[in-house]
Amino acid sequence: MRAEPQDFGRVLSSMCTEPHPAAREAAERFLATNPGDPGTYEAVADLEERVVDDLGAIVGLDDPVGYVASGGTEANIQAVRAARNLADAANPNVVAPESVHFSFRKAAGVLDVDLRLAPLSDDYRADVDAVRELADDDTALVVGVAGTTEYGRVDPIPELGAVARDHDALFHVDAAWGGFFLPFTDREWSFADAPVDTMTIDPHKVGQAAIPAGGFLVRDESLLDALAVDTPYLESTGQATLTGTRSGAGVASAAAAIDELWPDGYREGYERAQADAEWLAAALTDRGYDVVEPTLPLVAADVPEREFEALRDAGWRISRTGDDELRIVCMPHVTRTMLESFVADVDSVRPRRNVNT
Amino acid sequence: MRAEPQDFGRVLSSMCTEPHPAAREAAERFLATNPGDPGTYEAVADLEERVVDDLGAIVGLDDPVGYVASGGTEANIQAVRAARNLADAANPNVVAPESVHFSFRKAAGVLDVDLRLAPLSDDYRADVDAVRELADDDTALVVGVAGTTEYGRVDPIPELGAVARDHDALFHVDAAWGGFFLPFTDREWSFADAPVDTMTIDPHKVGQAAIPAGGFLVRDESLLDALAVDTPYLESTGQATLTGTRSGAGVASAAAAIDELWPDGYREGYERAQADAEWLAAALTDRGYDVVEPTLPLVAADVPEREFEALRDAGWRISRTGDDELRIVCMPHVTRTMLESFVADVDSVRPRRNVNT
Repeated sequence: MRAEPQDFGRVLSSMCTEPHPAAREAAERFLATNPGDPGTYEAVADLEERVVDDLGAIVGLDDPVGYVASGGTEANIQAVRAARNLADAANPNVVAPESVHFSFRKAAGVLDVDLRLAPLSDDYRADVDAVRELADDDTALVVGVAGTTEYGRVDPIPELGAVARDHDALFHVDAAWGGFFLPFTDREWSFADAPVDTMTIDPHKVGQAAIPAGGFLVRDESLLDALAVDTPYLESTGQATLTGTRSGAGVASAAAAIDELWPDGYREGYERAQADAEWLAAALTDRGYDVVEPTLPLVAADVPEREFEALRDAGWRISRTGDDELRIVCMPHVTRTMLESFVADVDSVRPRRNVNT
Repeated sequence: MRAEPQDFGRVLSSMCTEPHPAAREAAERFLATNPGDPGTYEAVADLEERVVDDLGAIVGLDDPVGYVASGGTEANIQAVRAARNLADAANPNVVAPESVHFSFRKAAGVLDVDLRLAPLSDDYRADVDAVRELADDDTALVVGVAGTTEYGRVDPIPELGAVARDHDALFHVDAAWGGFFLPFTDREWSFADAPVDTMTIDPHKVGQAAIPAGGFLVRDESLLDALAVDTPYLESTGQATLTGTRSGAGVASAAAAIDELWPDGYREGYERAQADAEWLAAALTDRGYDVVEPTLPLVAADVPEREFEALRDAGWRISRTGDDELRIVCMPHVTRTMLESFVADVDSVRPRRNVNT
């Protein structure tokens, strides 16, 4: 029996999605290319330059430098690696809010740097005072998140950037998930809004490229140079990426998706997803659940274990936050119809109680 | 104007190739899946288990443990990382022959371990005495290469494994390129031939899977456990991979290629490639060039700079070894017809001289 992939009809937990048809087509055409060897695979290397330029426009960076990574984890590791390599301190540390993606714990372990996690404010965003408290002369990097994985929150990016500058540390913004929504909000999050040095923004999430297409952008070339190793046998001579051979499908699909969707398609997608998230939040609130307000299209709600498991048994791919709340990500494949069907299932699994519905 | 990928008709330098048609079809179907989130994407997670089992059969490992990595670089980094994490020494070192892939220099830099490179024997293989000389009580890992990137050589794997055991170090074999050829040779290189702990073997090279599909295999679960970090928000609970989101296309294409080609298709491919390499080596020798004998399907020849550049200008994608020899890799897309056409171009660019042709 031939294996078949899942369909996305009940996937509510993933930050991956169905690629845009143009992205899928480009991925299929460029399946057998390796941007890790630009001398041999020139066409896809050219496309990668285009993606970096396009991402620069999205994140407010003139003359952008960077590359298409395997994903946000690689980009976050690379930010920590660049900061560590450039640090003067013998034991450099990284200061980040507790809401950072677990890839920062991975990065700290791999790169052997001290990761200092600052508690959050009541609104689930970084507490700037707490971050300032943890930063010192050995701090190589301060991290802010623009769209947290658990609650979709945007940290006070300009203020965190100022803390970094006070300690001559680099400043990284993780916009892996949020980066394709945020240009259509009034949030301050980009290179244009704050002294950002490095950023993660993933085309294969909200950007609707095919996996693997992460994005790593840096303010200037010296930050990539801090990562380069020599490359004999290739037709190029240096390699700043963490991986070696890389996916041309990811690169070509990112170019195609951005070509197709920036800016109007992404704006419409954001508006639709945000409206859906607010609709879902209201529906769950109406049913008596405590809901964390969605500032970006991500809804967390306090749903009891028994009901959560019953929804899973009904086929919904859902996950939980660290505090055990149900977590729903309104990715491009998530439609209002899916959410209505989900809420109907919520109604069928919850016990009758005295609520305002 | 729509960008088009290179075709492979003149690519002689790459260790990537055209995926098998079955691999391409599977990659296209599984483009929108993420084996990094096995709870949500179950079908591709099941396929990954199948690939690991199949790779185990290829490398002589019962009950194999491992995963499909982004490529050989990730797998090599992970081998060094596992060894470092498990080492007792405060300053662990890695001992490897000078012929190791440059990803080991990358790994050493990323992981902050000391990389000690041992000179080679006259036959371009690891000199076991030189490796033994460099190993000490702080050695966490000894590395052998089964199919070197520059000359396709297979190190004395059992002897290097014995050096590792003498120092209670782990032993890694990099068979990224060679692993799908070697089962059809009489070389000793596998888990069945030596005390190997970890191995790199890449389906997206000679295995004819689509990029990205590297392979990282370990002798037992504890070696993967040494790499695991906790994963909140995902439906699974631990992640040993270096990247986070991963390519389902790579995984599914590896399963399809191995299904289609193991063992007979790979055997035929090896025999054809080896015969082609020997034909090319003879043709270049006949024309007076010094040729490094191909023990696997890879030919290196001392071709003067002017002729090399003229061949590149003629459209050939060729590269050079560290010693500036022309280097031709007989990958599955490289046909005898291509090589005949290449040799005809060699004839047209070389000056007349007194040689035996």
